Amino acid sequence: MRACLVAVGSEMLTPFRVDTNSLFVTEQLNTVGIDVRMKAVVGDDVRELIAMLRGALEWADVIVLTGGLGPTEDDVTRDAVAGVLNLRMSEDDVVVSRIRERFARRGLTMPDINRRQGFVPQGATLLENPNGTAPGLWLEHGSTAIVLLPGPPREMKPMFEAVVRDRLAPRSGGAGLFRRVLKITGRTESDVDATTQPIYGRWVSQEVPISTTILAVLGQIELHLTARAPDRSAADIALEKAVQELQAALGDAVYSVNGLGLEAVVAELLKQQALTIATAESCSGGLLASRLTDVPGSSAYMQQGVICYSNASKTELVGVPAALIETYGAVSEPVAAAMATGIRMRAGTDVGVGITGIAGPGGGTPEKPVGTVAIAVSTLDDQRVRTFQFFGGRDLVKFQSSQGALNMLRLLLTRGR
Amino acid sequence: MRACLVAVGSEMLTPFRVDTNSLFVTEQLNTVGIDVRMKAVVGDDVRELIAMLRGALEWADVIVLTGGLGPTEDDVTRDAVAGVLNLRMSEDDVVVSRIRERFARRGLTMPDINRRQGFVPQGATLLENPNGTAPGLWLEHGSTAIVLLPGPPREMKPMFEAVVRDRLAPRSGGAGLFRRVLKITGRTESDVDATTQPIYGRWVSQEVPISTTILAVLGQIELHLTARAPDRSAADIALEKAVQELQAALGDAVYSVNGLGLEAVVAELLKQQALTIATAESCSGGLLASRLTDVPGSSAYMQQGVICYSNASKTELVGVPAALIETYGAVSEPVAAAMATGIRMRAGTDVGVGITGIAGPGGGTPEKPVGTVAIAVSTLDDQRVRTFQFFGGRDLVKFQSSQGALNMLRLLLTRGR
Repeated sequence: MRACLVAVGSEMLTPFRVDTNSLFVTEQLNTVGIDVRMKAVVGDDVRELIAMLRGALEWADVIVLTGGLGPTEDDVTRDAVAGVLNLRMSEDDVVVSRIRERFARRGLTMPDINRRQGFVPQGATLLENPNGTAPGLWLEHGSTAIVLLPGPPREMKPMFEAVVRDRLAPRSGGAGLFRRVLKITGRTESDVDATTQPIYGRWVSQEVPISTTILAVLGQIELHLTARAPDRSAADIALEKAVQELQAALGDAVYSVNGLGLEAVVAELLKQQALTIATAESCSGGLLASRLTDVPGSSAYMQQGVICYSNASKTELVGVPAALIETYGAVSEPVAAAMATGIRMRAGTDVGVGITGIAGPGGGTPEKPVGTVAIAVSTLDDQRVRTFQFFGGRDLVKFQSSQGALNMLRLLLTRGR
Repeated sequence: MRACLVAVGSEMLTPFRVDTNSLFVTEQLNTVGIDVRMKAVVGDDVRELIAMLRGALEWADVIVLTGGLGPTEDDVTRDAVAGVLNLRMSEDDVVVSRIRERFARRGLTMPDINRRQGFVPQGATLLENPNGTAPGLWLEHGSTAIVLLPGPPREMKPMFEAVVRDRLAPRSGGAGLFRRVLKITGRTESDVDATTQPIYGRWVSQEVPISTTILAVLGQIELHLTARAPDRSAADIALEKAVQELQAALGDAVYSVNGLGLEAVVAELLKQQALTIATAESCSGGLLASRLTDVPGSSAYMQQGVICYSNASKTELVGVPAALIETYGAVSEPVAAAMATGIRMRAGTDVGVGITGIAGPGGGTPEKPVGTVAIAVSTLDDQRVRTFQFFGGRDLVKFQSSQGALNMLRLLLTRGR
């Protein structure tokens, strides 16, 4: 089955906003085997919305409209749908009295304009909206189902889940789409593709076919696997086998097969091994500590962190000898190592991390250009130091520095390389 | 003039991706007075794309298509446009030889499949693509202009800028849209609306009309002003007057009238006054320091920061007396104040900041629920302490804590309240 999604509202046609409802709706529809073939954002204009819907009615099995169900003249979704299907509209007393009650419960009188929300095209089924005044509507035209939902996500989502469960899933009958995401760090997109293409290329034609997409986000690589299967358990078996094949090929580079971010993976390892950690950051400016404390329950492992931005503070806060900075420069492996060991010993933790580098845009030299970052991780019996050359602007260098440190921690804690 | 934007590509119909090209294209079109009335994402299917385009041709003055100009069978934009307009396609020798040369310059032989990119619908004007193989195409159908552009932003953007400058601006002749953004903190959306609606309500009908939109993002409020004017200077005069009216009404709550983020505003104040700063963070976990160091040149003011997550580290790192924590609790104004003063004195900076709170999801009590955050800012001759009650999940509490601290710094440095 093929779906067309339409978000109605001129405010989503500015340069500032994107429609994100469609991502949720797409995921829901995919799970019951309905493909989204087109999505559109249309302003508050009946004529344009009708032209759009007429095109979609030529091919779509399901049309989902979100937004434009409010009480004002700008809210044109009901009118456009009734218009394109040639349906009369009439005021539904039950809906209006429900809206009136909703206002009354808050001690308010319903403004007369809200009666517009009680207009229902002939033949429409009402969908209850426990979280707002506008009810949803369900219409059928030939074999096409047309669903009208309010725009605010907290009203739209629960209504749509009910529609999918009660009305669309039984009609669709097709195989659903089920997903897994592998997250990879420390390798390039083309390198990952060269390694994995011979593997995932075979899956397209197997009994439970799996399609694979590579996404590169912020210097990280994600492999999205999508299985088409009659039910979740068949999909899960095929996906698990696929994930294991990819893990075997990519080894340590895969840090997550269940959607977890790198900070959550490291947090889990620290908790499992009952280890405490402290951080000493220069160019990343606290971003590593902030990510480590994004994870709920982080006080179990995170003891303290320091941001030693100036050279003097590197000496004061973590005891890096001034002579070391003098000899090797503040951005160097010996200084990173001294920061990691220094913070570990001063904080009395099991693990220490040191990051020092040049985030840019200023401060680069021919020998140490912007993006040069030295990172060290230290425990009582192990120490690792690496120099990275990151690309991109200041934000990206900071992010990659934190990511590089988290990945070195992950490898340290799993005894990987 | 009314525009319809179409992004072509099945990969943008998954739950993972949004089309962002359209935001850039919208901004460009608005500047020359062209309204975007609809935008769509269509998969790689000729029939569906044709149905969509047929609807748009009923009303649009400009149709901009991005993507689907690659060399493979999946790239259907050329075919669909030729199909809907009933135009023959033929291979353009000049285009093909240019693509061949592009490959040759990299020491490669052009694969035969790339000849598809040289297919040009009858009557189309070629738009040069200095950054890729696929040329853009410009077509006219009645009074409608149809622009085909490649999908990758680095190819699309320079081509589109040229099209707007050379071809669309002279045709449009209408007034352009010009924007300003006010950023506001510490007040609610409805409060801001109640204060400003009587002001901005009047602008809609003035000589240079200005429309106003309120956006609430991450607990911050933005007022987007859009002026419609024949040229930028007329718009700038009207917008400046409008901004000043809003500033007079909202006072200190406005922190930026030029798009700058709060960290950049604080950075600017610190630099102007040649002040240095140090931070002591608990629940925000380094996020404040990270934001302060997001600004290029932050080493001018940022000396050091500490993340004292455990109670012991509050005493060790910034000298908060253990008895103070014992008496008032770690999340309290006296402890926040001791952190701010302690880090300022230990680091020898002009300004110190202390943040202590409960980010959640655990750790809340009836007296101090999740989201309770005490923040202090301290200089040699001034000290301010406040307790906030933030809402939302852990990420949002962390963000609002950093935002609250930055705003207190801004008010301290501008002698505001």
